[in-house]
Amino acid sequence: MRLTTIRHEGTTRAARVEGDEFVLLDAVDVGALLRQGSSGDGDGASIPAAAARRAPLVTHPGKIVCVGVNYRDHIEEMGREVPPAPTYFAKFRHALIGATDDIQLPAADVSTHVDWEAELAVVIGQEIRHASASEAMAAIAGFTVFNDVSVRDYQRRTTQFLAGKTFEGTTPVGPDLVTADVVGDGSGLAISCSVDGVVKQQSTTSALVFNAVDIIQDLSTIITLEPGDLIATGTPGGVGAARNPPEWLTDGVVLQTEIDGLGLCTNTCRRP
Amino acid sequence: MRLTTIRHEGTTRAARVEGDEFVLLDAVDVGALLRQGSSGDGDGASIPAAAARRAPLVTHPGKIVCVGVNYRDHIEEMGREVPPAPTYFAKFRHALIGATDDIQLPAADVSTHVDWEAELAVVIGQEIRHASASEAMAAIAGFTVFNDVSVRDYQRRTTQFLAGKTFEGTTPVGPDLVTADVVGDGSGLAISCSVDGVVKQQSTTSALVFNAVDIIQDLSTIITLEPGDLIATGTPGGVGAARNPPEWLTDGVVLQTEIDGLGLCTNTCRRP
Repeated sequence: MRLTTIRHEGTTRAARVEGDEFVLLDAVDVGALLRQGSSGDGDGASIPAAAARRAPLVTHPGKIVCVGVNYRDHIEEMGREVPPAPTYFAKFRHALIGATDDIQLPAADVSTHVDWEAELAVVIGQEIRHASASEAMAAIAGFTVFNDVSVRDYQRRTTQFLAGKTFEGTTPVGPDLVTADVVGDGSGLAISCSVDGVVKQQSTTSALVFNAVDIIQDLSTIITLEPGDLIATGTPGGVGAARNPPEWLTDGVVLQTEIDGLGLCTNTCRRP
Repeated sequence: MRLTTIRHEGTTRAARVEGDEFVLLDAVDVGALLRQGSSGDGDGASIPAAAARRAPLVTHPGKIVCVGVNYRDHIEEMGREVPPAPTYFAKFRHALIGATDDIQLPAADVSTHVDWEAELAVVIGQEIRHASASEAMAAIAGFTVFNDVSVRDYQRRTTQFLAGKTFEGTTPVGPDLVTADVVGDGSGLAISCSVDGVVKQQSTTSALVFNAVDIIQDLSTIITLEPGDLIATGTPGGVGAARNPPEWLTDGVVLQTEIDGLGLCTNTCRRP
């Protein structure tokens, strides 16, 4: 099943994707739907998919946890070491945008060092704490596409990444939640990222150091995970900062982030 | 004015503190009250303060931002450098507890390296983005007491602090929000922390490298701040990890965190 969140009649709405139609569901977004315990198979009015634009897949996640340095080729290009455990940092809600929304680049006097990071993201479907591997797997509602767009000079101005990772309106998440019964644990999916049609990142989610189940199990040792929590699992090699010379996202370029079987985000960068 | 959030009739409730009484207000917590745009001066039924226990001051903050390495003596004891900009990391909501709640230590096989960090915290009262210093000051609803209790081995297992900073039920915040008309920009307040009555940290909020206004202004360059957002400003010297030998919070000890004019959190540590 494919679930999504669309902008509809001045607000947002959860919907089920059926071919070229959205079946409207009784929740403001996929996060609210999951918190209701709904599987998303309810009846509702249909509207043509062309009539509505995607909102961020989860509009108010209780947590947005990102995992860094989690693909070996990206670890090498960034000059880091394979960590003994997942490297976590956060984002805040205002960073999120929908699958076709514009990316808000910071003003040029704030930063011009904006970079791409195609990622597989997991959405939690059940409350869990101290999960076993099988409980972690069962807590996965499904997977989606995420681009952890990063403002590198802010990321690196101190030891902690958060400042460069949570700029307003930078982070595409969507278009759909593809449920775990379709994609299992999220491994084996081709992941890629292109800028103006030129492929910059190309890998497979099987190359993750810590996969979705590992991450959920470890996180649940620390804190309760809840329906709607969003976890981005890290990016493969090919980011702009590691290129020679470095490459950055600029006004007007189109960033495309794709995961096989999950979907495509197409976002135009706009500098104010 | 002193505002607080109490546990009342099976839920939480915002209240105004008037001597030994709580005047109940029409909001589930101080965060909701601020989002309503209320100044907290409304009428309501009074209950004796002894009849209710404090909840976390803001139960569902949109953001919890913590600032690290922000007092010179703590920077020295941790062997770090004075950073060129505030060092941000996050916590998630489930980490928060009330001013007299027990601190949930992790199970002994997860970690025994749990440390204290007394901090001044700011609560945002108005939505702001790209704030000037005066706008940042005007956006402060008030200040409260916070202890950024830290699981040091998890904090240090990777480059990013988040894992060690967001353990469930570890972070006292409260007892009250003291409004900015009483305490200004939060400088000049004595701050201290004791374990079983022995003082471990003692400083003044005037020793902050980046003060509340600096932090809010800088954060608002990155992302919109909203009513109820919680920002912890960093801890002075005297943490357990920097002692020789290191000292940790153990089952049954009482952690007290106090800021002059703001109040006192008294929390007993409990290991499951």
